[in-house]
Amino acid sequence: MLIVMAVGATREQVAAVTAHIEALGLKGHPIPGAQRVAIGITGNTGVIEPALFESLPGVLEVIPVSHPYKLVSREVKPEDSVVSVGGVKIGGGHFAVIAGPCSVENTDQALVAARAVRAAGAHILRGGAFKPRTSPYSFQGLGKAGLAILRDVGRETGMPVVSEALDHESLEQVVETCDMIQVGARNMQNYSLLRTCGRTRKPVLLKRGMSATVEELLMAAEYVLSEGNYNVVLCERGIRTFADHTRNTLDLAAVVAVQRLSHLPIIVDPSHGTGKRHKVIPMGRAAAAAGADGLMIEVHHDPTHALSDAAQQVLPEELAQLMHQLPVLLPLTGRHLSERQ
Amino acid sequence: MLIVMAVGATREQVAAVTAHIEALGLKGHPIPGAQRVAIGITGNTGVIEPALFESLPGVLEVIPVSHPYKLVSREVKPEDSVVSVGGVKIGGGHFAVIAGPCSVENTDQALVAARAVRAAGAHILRGGAFKPRTSPYSFQGLGKAGLAILRDVGRETGMPVVSEALDHESLEQVVETCDMIQVGARNMQNYSLLRTCGRTRKPVLLKRGMSATVEELLMAAEYVLSEGNYNVVLCERGIRTFADHTRNTLDLAAVVAVQRLSHLPIIVDPSHGTGKRHKVIPMGRAAAAAGADGLMIEVHHDPTHALSDAAQQVLPEELAQLMHQLPVLLPLTGRHLSERQ
Amino acid sequence: MLIVMAVGATREQVAAVTAHIEALGLKGHPIPGAQRVAIGITGNTGVIEPALFESLPGVLEVIPVSHPYKLVSREVKPEDSVVSVGGVKIGGGHFAVIAGPCSVENTDQALVAARAVRAAGAHILRGGAFKPRTSPYSFQGLGKAGLAILRDVGRETGMPVVSEALDHESLEQVVETCDMIQVGARNMQNYSLLRTCGRTRKPVLLKRGMSATVEELLMAAEYVLSEGNYNVVLCERGIRTFADHTRNTLDLAAVVAVQRLSHLPIIVDPSHGTGKRHKVIPMGRAAAAAGADGLMIEVHHDPTHALSDAAQQVLPEELAQLMHQLPVLLPLTGRHLSERQ
Amino acid sequence: MLIVMAVGATREQVAAVTAHIEALGLKGHPIPGAQRVAIGITGNTGVIEPALFESLPGVLEVIPVSHPYKLVSREVKPEDSVVSVGGVKIGGGHFAVIAGPCSVENTDQALVAARAVRAAGAHILRGGAFKPRTSPYSFQGLGKAGLAILRDVGRETGMPVVSEALDHESLEQVVETCDMIQVGARNMQNYSLLRTCGRTRKPVLLKRGMSATVEELLMAAEYVLSEGNYNVVLCERGIRTFADHTRNTLDLAAVVAVQRLSHLPIIVDPSHGTGKRHKVIPMGRAAAAAGADGLMIEVHHDPTHALSDAAQQVLPEELAQLMHQLPVLLPLTGRHLSERQ
Repeated sequence: MLIVMAVGATREQVAAVTAHIEALGLKGHPIPGAQRVAIGITGNTGVIEPALFESLPGVLEVIPVSHPYKLVSREVKPEDSVVSVGGVKIGGGHFAVIAGPCSVENTDQALVAARAVRAAGAHILRGGAFKPRTSPYSFQGLGKAGLAILRDVGRETGMPVVSEALDHESLEQVVETCDMIQVGARNMQNYSLLRTCGRTRKPVLLKRGMSATVEELLMAAEYVLSEGNYNVVLCERGIRTFADHTRNTLDLAAVVAVQRLSHLPIIVDPSHGTGKRHKVIPMGRAAAAAGADGLMIEVHHDPTHALSDAAQQVLPEELAQLMHQLPVLLPLTGRHLSERQ
Repeated sequence: MLIVMAVGATREQVAAVTAHIEALGLKGHPIPGAQRVAIGITGNTGVIEPALFESLPGVLEVIPVSHPYKLVSREVKPEDSVVSVGGVKIGGGHFAVIAGPCSVENTDQALVAARAVRAAGAHILRGGAFKPRTSPYSFQGLGKAGLAILRDVGRETGMPVVSEALDHESLEQVVETCDMIQVGARNMQNYSLLRTCGRTRKPVLLKRGMSATVEELLMAAEYVLSEGNYNVVLCERGIRTFADHTRNTLDLAAVVAVQRLSHLPIIVDPSHGTGKRHKVIPMGRAAAAAGADGLMIEVHHDPTHALSDAAQQVLPEELAQLMHQLPVLLPLTGRHLSERQ
Repeated sequence: MLIVMAVGATREQVAAVTAHIEALGLKGHPIPGAQRVAIGITGNTGVIEPALFESLPGVLEVIPVSHPYKLVSREVKPEDSVVSVGGVKIGGGHFAVIAGPCSVENTDQALVAARAVRAAGAHILRGGAFKPRTSPYSFQGLGKAGLAILRDVGRETGMPVVSEALDHESLEQVVETCDMIQVGARNMQNYSLLRTCGRTRKPVLLKRGMSATVEELLMAAEYVLSEGNYNVVLCERGIRTFADHTRNTLDLAAVVAVQRLSHLPIIVDPSHGTGKRHKVIPMGRAAAAAGADGLMIEVHHDPTHALSDAAQQVLPEELAQLMHQLPVLLPLTGRHLSERQ
Repeated sequence: MLIVMAVGATREQVAAVTAHIEALGLKGHPIPGAQRVAIGITGNTGVIEPALFESLPGVLEVIPVSHPYKLVSREVKPEDSVVSVGGVKIGGGHFAVIAGPCSVENTDQALVAARAVRAAGAHILRGGAFKPRTSPYSFQGLGKAGLAILRDVGRETGMPVVSEALDHESLEQVVETCDMIQVGARNMQNYSLLRTCGRTRKPVLLKRGMSATVEELLMAAEYVLSEGNYNVVLCERGIRTFADHTRNTLDLAAVVAVQRLSHLPIIVDPSHGTGKRHKVIPMGRAAAAAGADGLMIEVHHDPTHALSDAAQQVLPEELAQLMHQLPVLLPLTGRHLSERQ
């Protein structure tokens, strides 16, 4: 932490700030400058609230220096984490593709979709049973019945499955039925849900909130790790900006940023990240080229009749085409397709 | 809903779209233009997914026309709703001030704060017991014990109380103890929590999410109303933008926008909306001038020693000064200070 | 400037950074911490590029401490600047209202508009002659002829006039004809234009760019002042965000932020700041309550037939109503209506 | 254009809107719905201002249907445009790399840089002579002398050259000296400059503004084309968002969006698009994978001593590494490296 004093700050004000620092059991290091004095703080082991100093007389600005995350940090664990989802590895060079329909609609649809994505080469099956919808009048998912269908078609097609949990009740069901828990963008800062995920040992797929910084995403993951669950895969899925040619703005540089700061794997969801079918495959390719550790893609064999997110689900043959390109792309960033179960 | 066909769309493609519309039990109205054909859809009673049409051959764009909200809409209920919180009215001309510390820290602090805001003229006492914090290592609030303190000092000082619920467990406790449930910005799209709030009859203070549009805020309220609870007060508290001179960008025009679209009252939180103590009072004044139905302001008698959000809590005397200006300001928008209990 | 070293930085890396600092004629102050070393830099008189250090081995982050603006800063000149436009004062407690049509369309329209805003109580007449339009096929303004009309109706109604300059050629004409030069949001970082404005002694109305931070706005003003022209009035006119209920998001907290950092007056344009007629007056009122030094409002006696920006021009009677409310509002922030000429 | 009437709109209000449409020489098509009436408009050849209708009584909303761009549109010219810069082709499958230092600092530096990027495989040499800088006290470029150096080292190393023009004066010099004119992000809506570019026949590299939508970028290009110059290459260079891990948020989906709407080539600038050296190469790779028609990359042989933008310039060997990966990547999107001169 660095405290910058205003140009006209008096000697007494500097002394008062230093005294305040020492009263907190820390050490202050005044740095006299040509125009103003700055005071460095050392000795802190946890996070200090900048606001403890911001309002002291003569203080111009308080600049946090240390980063607040610990367990997720690459400074703590330099080597890549590898998360295993029902035997499929993600991270540390292993690139995995999660695919499937936005929602589980019924057994037939789920089975057709699962076979198609398996045939295309996907590793893990996704399918929504509890859907967070903007309107209370939209289709909200099949709930528990949907999870059972997902588990069954996963088994039949030999793929681990992932589905979203919205609250403690649905989380319990997802933990029981699935190989990975998805925490959606709208719940990235639902700390109660994150802590409960942390108390399981299931892999967690944590999606970046629509207006979350990379630091906030890492802090959300820290909630899970701080409860003892280290199996977290992050997911970039687009942020909200003024740009209106896509539903969200896919922020691929976040992949590079996360990988510098953290040992956790990070995958990309170009389906929600663009919200437009024709942009999903190009942006999936771009994510792989940027160095992502995997992709999550919504696939439906008949998108125009899908019950949700019809606009962003690609056809199985489009996924297959991308899967054929990945072996060319991945070696450019030192990655390879994960082995399937 | 309006479907716009591409310039080169064939007669057959237009016919196929019309057939698709009719297959859904709706009616299509082709509008031939100089360059292209558009097709209006009527007959729908609920929301139609634009995506059902977006991928049909020859379709350029699908433009939703109807708004998706119903119960919150001023079209359904033209006159202002008035929400009563422990006898204090908000909306329909009644302007109420909610004030108190960011967090309940202990009985003494809470009592000092409550007496101070009561003396300054506030109507309702706020105080956080369950705190959503970015870091798992920050102070998370006193929990249940904090709620009990809040209720007691509320009674002692004669003010109804409001506190935030984070999940079903804390919601139950807030419902038991408080006069109003706060749903925070991070939980604005926690639909499970919203539905449960909707099943109570307690007033709900619903804060706008950091990246929520006005439409999404209204849809979140619709979740509460659709379960039968019409006692919802909305709250503008700043959105996330590139601007870095405040913690959030307070979007006061949202007040005017909401009031045109909905009958629900809307108040403003300039404390979170700016995150800087010296901007709270000017922006509170601006909110009143824009026509808000109330304010929520964080007050602490000793901000530099507060356990959370020290940077944005004002002194009781600053609140008092604003309270003196409100009787001058409110008549400009046809409002008056609510009566205190 | 503060340089933060990575946790594992070696003694040699710290020494290399310090050597680099000294090679630039500056002084380095290492601050050893529990986890890492930080190095404060003093001795700089101008701006140092953070990038000069960012890529040195072992450096984690470079944090600028001093602010880059000088002449516009309140640290340099603590008291408010008062800018006089044809005798009308703005700043230092003087609140001025600039009003008029978006575009000068012809003499009749301009005269009707000028008389109406004069009658309503406005101080300065605005009217666009050179219009920056998104489409090359939209009405681009009357150019030089428009300026002549504006000047004439300004004289006839006794009001100083302001109009926008787009480039050096139009700037020359505006300087010749008008009492104040407007630099629009799209040109806020047109440094060539700013410098030329700085070489005149005409008052400059500098509008904030759609994606400009407060610091960038102040730096743009610094370009004008650095050439010797201190007559600059800043203008908040909305920033671009994801919010879609207004054309731009009016950032009223920027008024408070600017007034803390700079001695220059700042006014607000609620017409462009909202882009919706029914939001202009409420937000104009809010701007006054926040402490702005003036308003700029587009007024047209027949908005539905205006040649540009029809959606955001208010009627003269709406302006008159606001002008009646200002004497109530302004004393709350220690301001008063400027005297008219 | 579609006009949506409010639920309670009267028969007379609908008639008045229709009359207004016909008075403008257009045709109105009322579409009666269950809840409200919408009115389609046909017969317009140019852009209609939505605002002409927005304020009529009973009107709820006006929805523009046609897109305002013409000459840049793929509807007008379906096949890709190929722009030739001193013999180097961009677009239509040809992928070109523009590289060089941020600023021309002196002949030695420029020559070393030019040789290095030529050796690495770049096609076109870039180098700033007129620099738009946030601070008036930062290095502003060598101006005319810088252009002469750039031209000379371009000739010596056999590469066409591109440099930025800031105003009419510098534009004249760039036209005289360079093979391509760059219009920077800050000038994307400097329509006066765009028109003058349109009157030359030099290729124009038009960078997207920091807060410009894809539609606004295309409209800016329309200004150049409407004056007769069809040699325009667009450039995505990052937009301004709340995300703080990069200087700008590189919006790669804009590449796909532009290519659907327009026949013009679009390249990507990952240097400004990220502002961080270690993110430039991964994002350049991602841009190629997304289907961009080229890259613009800042290269400096000694970034830590560069006079501007030191943080984002990569080393020649980093560029060389990317150039080796491109022949693997480009065929995935049907592209190939352009031939060098």
